[in-house]
Amino acid sequence: MATNKKKQPSVKKKNSRARRKIGKAPGTITYLGKREKTASVLKVIEYDEQKLEEFETSDVDALASFRAGPCTSWIDVVGINDESFIEHLGKVFGLNPLLLEDAVNTEQRPKIDDYGDYLFGVFKMLYLDEQKNIVSEHVALVLFENTVILFQELEEDVFSGVRNRLRAKTGRIRARGADYLFFALIDSIIDHYFEILESINAKIEILEEEVYQDPTPEVAHRIQDLKKEVLKVRKWIFPMRELVGRLLDSESKLISKDTQPFLRDALDHCVEINESLQIYREMSMSLMEMYMSNMSNKMNEVMKVLTIMASIFIPLTFIAGIYGMNFKNMPELNTEYGYYVVWGLMIVLFIGMLFYFKRKQWL
Amino acid sequence: MATNKKKQPSVKKKNSRARRKIGKAPGTITYLGKREKTASVLKVIEYDEQKLEEFETSDVDALASFRAGPCTSWIDVVGINDESFIEHLGKVFGLNPLLLEDAVNTEQRPKIDDYGDYLFGVFKMLYLDEQKNIVSEHVALVLFENTVILFQELEEDVFSGVRNRLRAKTGRIRARGADYLFFALIDSIIDHYFEILESINAKIEILEEEVYQDPTPEVAHRIQDLKKEVLKVRKWIFPMRELVGRLLDSESKLISKDTQPFLRDALDHCVEINESLQIYREMSMSLMEMYMSNMSNKMNEVMKVLTIMASIFIPLTFIAGIYGMNFKNMPELNTEYGYYVVWGLMIVLFIGMLFYFKRKQWL
Amino acid sequence: MATNKKKQPSVKKKNSRARRKIGKAPGTITYLGKREKTASVLKVIEYDEQKLEEFETSDVDALASFRAGPCTSWIDVVGINDESFIEHLGKVFGLNPLLLEDAVNTEQRPKIDDYGDYLFGVFKMLYLDEQKNIVSEHVALVLFENTVILFQELEEDVFSGVRNRLRAKTGRIRARGADYLFFALIDSIIDHYFEILESINAKIEILEEEVYQDPTPEVAHRIQDLKKEVLKVRKWIFPMRELVGRLLDSESKLISKDTQPFLRDALDHCVEINESLQIYREMSMSLMEMYMSNMSNKMNEVMKVLTIMASIFIPLTFIAGIYGMNFKNMPELNTEYGYYVVWGLMIVLFIGMLFYFKRKQWL
Amino acid sequence: MATNKKKQPSVKKKNSRARRKIGKAPGTITYLGKREKTASVLKVIEYDEQKLEEFETSDVDALASFRAGPCTSWIDVVGINDESFIEHLGKVFGLNPLLLEDAVNTEQRPKIDDYGDYLFGVFKMLYLDEQKNIVSEHVALVLFENTVILFQELEEDVFSGVRNRLRAKTGRIRARGADYLFFALIDSIIDHYFEILESINAKIEILEEEVYQDPTPEVAHRIQDLKKEVLKVRKWIFPMRELVGRLLDSESKLISKDTQPFLRDALDHCVEINESLQIYREMSMSLMEMYMSNMSNKMNEVMKVLTIMASIFIPLTFIAGIYGMNFKNMPELNTEYGYYVVWGLMIVLFIGMLFYFKRKQWL
Amino acid sequence: MATNKKKQPSVKKKNSRARRKIGKAPGTITYLGKREKTASVLKVIEYDEQKLEEFETSDVDALASFRAGPCTSWIDVVGINDESFIEHLGKVFGLNPLLLEDAVNTEQRPKIDDYGDYLFGVFKMLYLDEQKNIVSEHVALVLFENTVILFQELEEDVFSGVRNRLRAKTGRIRARGADYLFFALIDSIIDHYFEILESINAKIEILEEEVYQDPTPEVAHRIQDLKKEVLKVRKWIFPMRELVGRLLDSESKLISKDTQPFLRDALDHCVEINESLQIYREMSMSLMEMYMSNMSNKMNEVMKVLTIMASIFIPLTFIAGIYGMNFKNMPELNTEYGYYVVWGLMIVLFIGMLFYFKRKQWL
Ligand SMILES: [Mg+2]
Ligand SMILES: [Mg+2]
Ligand SMILES: [Mg+2]
Ligand SMILES: [Mg+2]
Ligand SMILES: [Mg+2]
Ligand SMILES: [Mg+2]
Ligand SMILES: [Mg+2]
Ligand SMILES: [Mg+2]
Ligand SMILES: [Mg+2]
Ligand SMILES: [Mg+2]
Ligand SMILES: [Mg+2]
Ligand SMILES: [Mg+2]
Ligand SMILES: [Mg+2]
Ligand SMILES: [Mg+2]
Ligand SMILES: [Mg+2]
Ligand SMILES: [Mg+2]
Ligand SMILES: [Mg+2]
Ligand SMILES: [Mg+2]
Ligand SMILES: [Mg+2]
Ligand SMILES: [Mg+2]
Ligand SMILES: [Mg+2]
Ligand SMILES: [Mg+2]
Ligand SMILES: [Mg+2]
Ligand SMILES: [Mg+2]
Ligand SMILES: [Mg+2]
Ligand SMILES: [Mg+2]
Ligand SMILES: [Mg+2]
Ligand SMILES: [Mg+2]
Ligand SMILES: [Mg+2]
Ligand SMILES: [Mg+2]
Ligand SMILES: [Mg+2]
Repeated sequence: MATNKKKQPSVKKKNSRARRKIGKAPGTITYLGKREKTASVLKVIEYDEQKLEEFETSDVDALASFRAGPCTSWIDVVGINDESFIEHLGKVFGLNPLLLEDAVNTEQRPKIDDYGDYLFGVFKMLYLDEQKNIVSEHVALVLFENTVILFQELEEDVFSGVRNRLRAKTGRIRARGADYLFFALIDSIIDHYFEILESINAKIEILEEEVYQDPTPEVAHRIQDLKKEVLKVRKWIFPMRELVGRLLDSESKLISKDTQPFLRDALDHCVEINESLQIYREMSMSLMEMYMSNMSNKMNEVMKVLTIMASIFIPLTFIAGIYGMNFKNMPELNTEYGYYVVWGLMIVLFIGMLFYFKRKQWL
Repeated sequence: MATNKKKQPSVKKKNSRARRKIGKAPGTITYLGKREKTASVLKVIEYDEQKLEEFETSDVDALASFRAGPCTSWIDVVGINDESFIEHLGKVFGLNPLLLEDAVNTEQRPKIDDYGDYLFGVFKMLYLDEQKNIVSEHVALVLFENTVILFQELEEDVFSGVRNRLRAKTGRIRARGADYLFFALIDSIIDHYFEILESINAKIEILEEEVYQDPTPEVAHRIQDLKKEVLKVRKWIFPMRELVGRLLDSESKLISKDTQPFLRDALDHCVEINESLQIYREMSMSLMEMYMSNMSNKMNEVMKVLTIMASIFIPLTFIAGIYGMNFKNMPELNTEYGYYVVWGLMIVLFIGMLFYFKRKQWL
Repeated sequence: MATNKKKQPSVKKKNSRARRKIGKAPGTITYLGKREKTASVLKVIEYDEQKLEEFETSDVDALASFRAGPCTSWIDVVGINDESFIEHLGKVFGLNPLLLEDAVNTEQRPKIDDYGDYLFGVFKMLYLDEQKNIVSEHVALVLFENTVILFQELEEDVFSGVRNRLRAKTGRIRARGADYLFFALIDSIIDHYFEILESINAKIEILEEEVYQDPTPEVAHRIQDLKKEVLKVRKWIFPMRELVGRLLDSESKLISKDTQPFLRDALDHCVEINESLQIYREMSMSLMEMYMSNMSNKMNEVMKVLTIMASIFIPLTFIAGIYGMNFKNMPELNTEYGYYVVWGLMIVLFIGMLFYFKRKQWL
Repeated sequence: MATNKKKQPSVKKKNSRARRKIGKAPGTITYLGKREKTASVLKVIEYDEQKLEEFETSDVDALASFRAGPCTSWIDVVGINDESFIEHLGKVFGLNPLLLEDAVNTEQRPKIDDYGDYLFGVFKMLYLDEQKNIVSEHVALVLFENTVILFQELEEDVFSGVRNRLRAKTGRIRARGADYLFFALIDSIIDHYFEILESINAKIEILEEEVYQDPTPEVAHRIQDLKKEVLKVRKWIFPMRELVGRLLDSESKLISKDTQPFLRDALDHCVEINESLQIYREMSMSLMEMYMSNMSNKMNEVMKVLTIMASIFIPLTFIAGIYGMNFKNMPELNTEYGYYVVWGLMIVLFIGMLFYFKRKQWL
Repeated sequence: MATNKKKQPSVKKKNSRARRKIGKAPGTITYLGKREKTASVLKVIEYDEQKLEEFETSDVDALASFRAGPCTSWIDVVGINDESFIEHLGKVFGLNPLLLEDAVNTEQRPKIDDYGDYLFGVFKMLYLDEQKNIVSEHVALVLFENTVILFQELEEDVFSGVRNRLRAKTGRIRARGADYLFFALIDSIIDHYFEILESINAKIEILEEEVYQDPTPEVAHRIQDLKKEVLKVRKWIFPMRELVGRLLDSESKLISKDTQPFLRDALDHCVEINESLQIYREMSMSLMEMYMSNMSNKMNEVMKVLTIMASIFIPLTFIAGIYGMNFKNMPELNTEYGYYVVWGLMIVLFIGMLFYFKRKQWL
């Protein structure tokens, strides 16, 4: 396997997932993200149809009773790199260490695990920042009977719509339980994928135009970047279809029958998103093909110019060369109109060549 | 992911599906099409084997009783961007808000949902306009026991054949119930797909000819357009096979046993359409390959002309150059026939070169 | 979708399947082939182990009793574009209108339908005509308990082997019922596919040779034709595997247990044919790759000739140009052997260049 | 379909499988190989744990009792093109005509058929001849309770290991029944496939080296041959995985429970072989890509030489041309050092050009 | 098949797996690796929650009682090429010969076999050596009720993490039985795959940069090496997903219910690894495409330089050639400013050409 002895890349120790995990027991809570260690903050929303309360805390123990409280509560854990805090939270809520490991593993693939008393899900929030770059953030959800715990790294998220609908009092969400909240959060993540798709689509359209107008190497580079972006987005989004499908078919008592039509609606979105990604993938591959074809065209243009110039002037220069020879005995040189006859000959040749290339449609 | 900081495309706010949907609760009726807001019109056909009545109205409430009336009725809702009207209609007929959201979502992927008391389907009508361009229009169908509701954006549709058969009195359609009407509408949509396939096939044949005759960059561009067209048509048509198959296997009491052979016939068509699309896709990819091969041929032609001209005249010019030198002592220059000997030499070289290139089959 | 406003191809009205079918009710008998209308002829073979009778007729009603007669009969309907005749035949034998529509639909994809009392199958006969071109003909079969009806457009078919075996009296076919005849006809269709495969294989071998010897654009064109031919043959043959498999697994009482080993044998052939087609498809794609590689080689050859000629003679011409200058003070010009020294220099350069290109293996 | 009227290849009648099979009833014994007709020889090994007897015969009838004899016997039928002999053998052992047809059909795809009282298998022996070319030979096996019949064309086979183990007396094979012998023969065929894989692997490694060192058209041709070889080997080997898997899951009473772990071991080999073939296939496709990339590199080299030579000497020649003009009034010509100044200018230009191309890394 | 008679590669006898296995009975223990014969060493760890003992031995018989002892023991067999030692060990522990054959077959594909009383698994350890090259080592595991036997070739392995956790006393692993140890060893193998993925990812990133900066043939060669590396790693890792999945679903009494969540966690990792490998594979194929596109760009650059130089200087040289002709009667030659006029004309032409190429964006 050691095919290339020289330039073996030095895997950077610092952010190497493998280095941090190797040798540890499964269930060891190991934060894998790149953020500096910060204290976790718990932002809680407790609500039922009549009332809604919002507060921040960092005292986990006070929240233990919420798990089976009379209201529905949403506990939003912001900041997941304080491993001992997470471990304590896990103990208070009785969470499996394997779950906690995945909750702080920012590289974790999207998934749903059914632990019987609670459901656990990992997802990727994707959204555009102000420079319209795609941002991906890890998010993990735990669904208890009356509580949803959400783990995320930063305050910024895609759930402001859900918060607003909660605060609005009117609307379905206040009347339903934790399972609907769980769905609404997933739905909100999925809804934002459409924004990503639109951004990819816009990039493809711009690149298509540029490939046709001006196929510079920089354009090829950006096509390559686009292909990688589609591959990465696909990696994060693709599992959602199966996850939501499995959630829909699961027999967990935590998902009420009323929430199922909404999950089916979300499944619809996932199917459509996967199809669109597949199409964008094929389009991005077509872009490179188009680029190569336009490159060939450009090359053809260049070669035509060279061929036309050379084919016209090389023979003419040869003729001039003939009459530049210094032979004593060259009768043409002494005729009165020899020079003009040669000019005439050259002009005829020149025009003949132009006609020839015109007919070949090279001009 | 932020691979390219400079040219991030600004996703157009106006028609962004994501922007309009993000933050809204599922089941919120949001028209996604590009048409100006217009009032919806209801075109009703009420019929049984004996009589048929046609009328237009905009009074939804008057139609509530049709749902389970003694005749079969077809309620054609033309115009779906008045969201409050659609919501009212939904209440009158007892339709699920998720259904209504999909009914006006012009971007909705084709699908069939079974709501127990009624079936819901979304489809894409595809037809050619007068300029032979492919037009795609969103259409949604609800099947009640005795009524079919059809949602569409414009009056123009692919159902004139069904209307004519209804008016004709003779024929199977008047004798059968709403489920046969439901089938007949889907069948009519599918029948029009063959027209689209024929148009794609015709484009492929034209492009094949052009690629062979005259592979200009414009042809490459049109091949690219064709590939995208096939991808888009595939996206709209591909789900039909599974939908019709699922309808056939469903145990909905709304689909009578007599209608099943007709659904099987429609399924046949869907299988064939998908196969043809697959073949067109492979053909359109072959077109680009053929284009590249012909481009290479052209380039080869250009290079042969250049090489022949240069290879013949550069040595001749060199010989002329030799005898254009001004050395005092160049005995050849003073011989009487030197000039003619050189001419002879050049002509021999010239003919030799021609023979050489002839033998190489470059001429 | 309307990506290209200018050259929309006009879909030919005359042979457009879509145009002829759109708006018609399913089950409407619509001949889709290109043949002129002709009267249908019924060629009947009635046989049991003792006797065999052959006759032609056009009187359908006389045959009604054959369906459940004491002998086995094969009714070969030659000519299927007289739609009213077919409709009448359908009534006499109690056939479903959807079946009749498919029986005369020459574009119908191969399939098997089980109508309970009878089985219906559509197939493509493929054979080589005298010019070794592939001919495809539509054929439809109905299997009753004691009768097989066969629909085809022309007299010419692939069943002469079956007729001969019937007439021979000895042999299994006379001793068995209609289901064995039904199998024998399908088997005969499948047997002829091997001839088509051999013809495709021969074409591939010829093209491989030509690509290597002489990759002209005409060869590229024929590779393209071959790829399309393989795609079309695949479209017609590919469904056979599933059809025969389904026939084998079906629980139709019309197929006796004794016929099953023969169907399994036919299934074997189908599997093998599909595998071979897959291989031919990959080979035909490789041909184009090989073509491009040989084109590149040719181009390389051309460029080497140009480069060698130019690299050798351009410097020599430069030297000649130097001594063609008219400066007063050029001491070399007046030396006695200057001219010969320059010739020597040029010859040395010339030989040096030859060595250089030899070493680079360009010569 | 008749896309190319001119060069239709004439399918060779003599070896055409289709021609020999068309029109014949299924079960007709038709030898399809290319060997001259020879008498079949039966090589029998009869053994139990105590004794082993080997003899040759051509008297089939004498062997009829072996089928259910007290010992295990292996009847090796060498030579299968005497169709009447095979038919007689079939009758003696009560074999189905469809089985006999497949047993002598040298084109038969690998398969296993369960006939209740006996199992039938067709396989391809692949081995390397002395010139290391891949040889493929048809082999068919019938497993009775106490007898294995093996059909092959030539004496040479891959079973000498099995014979030696039988003769050795020690070892498992003498202690077990016909089913273990049946397995051992299949295992021996599979074991030889690894030799084929190693030979393909070696070819790929050689070609990889050659593509890199010297991408001549001949190398491209051999890559193409390799790709075809992999396709053909895959066609013969690929079905083995499914066959052995089916044998393992079958409920035939002929396969004892003790033999199952050995079949599972063989299945392991089949899975691995198929994976390796898949990898070789991808590698052989990569080879062509690599070839094209190296061709492009070579072309680039050629063009750089041309461009450097032309770019350096064409301007110099132009300067020489200037001072070769015959204008009366050209003051430079008469200066004392004009010639040297021009030489200086040319040398400066020459060196500047060299620097320019050096900086561009073309030198 | 013998397509190329000349250069048949001689399959190296020495390391040929086929040669060593052909003709042997299944279950014959045949070491297939490349290491010299060495004595096997048994490194034993015996532990329960209270105590842990470590020792080395080479006396197999003394260990026979461990199989069902009161403690859990891990017997690490280092060195597997002493075939008689392995055979003896097999007898002592009652292992199936087929298992032993696979345990020493260093080419064995990863797999899990359930032998009822014990489970058997073969895996590939992959890790980076000090030069960051990928090393692959064969490892085989047997799980008894209270004992795990591990077969490996060398002392160096990926299990130091497991050993440390065992010695640490605290931690889950000491409290659980042999099945958890079995899992922990597999988990440790899988954890190291992430290191391999990171190394491949790093190589891709380096190559991407180089393809863009400097697409030399050496880079193409390394891309090819990378593609082969990904194929090989995929071959070793890909089966793990199915294996772990099967282990999870198996009903073996050897795997306790408490170990299942850990297996599910390992399955998660396998799914993610396979997805990443798929992405790396697509990326490595894109690299070659990118390489070709950059090569084309470079070629284009070269041709532009040539065309610009030739197009500018060839016409100028022609003009100089004109006035180098020796015609008696060339009036321009005798005018006072003729020379300067020609210079002016040439400069105008030169600048015009520069503008022309500027406008074409070739400069
Ligand atoms: Mg671990
Ligand atoms: Mg782990
Ligand atoms: Mg993932
Ligand atoms: Mg919806
Ligand atoms: Mg997808
Ligand atoms: Mg697609
Ligand atoms: Mg929403
Ligand atoms: Mg939604
Ligand atoms: Mg869609
Ligand atoms: Mg039909
Ligand atoms: Mg399809
Ligand atoms: Mg498809
Ligand atoms: Mg296809
Ligand atoms: Mg219709
Ligand atoms: Mg129809
Ligand atoms: Mg078809
Ligand atoms: Mg057969
Ligand atoms: Mg196939
Ligand atoms: Mg294949
Ligand atoms: Mg036959
Ligand atoms: Mg047959
Ligand atoms: Mg085969
Ligand atoms: Mg084994
Ligand atoms: Mg495979
Ligand atoms: Mg592979
Ligand atoms: Mg063996
Ligand atoms: Mg074996
Ligand atoms: Mg393997
Ligand atoms: Mg985990
Ligand atoms: Mg994978
Ligand atoms: Mg991927």
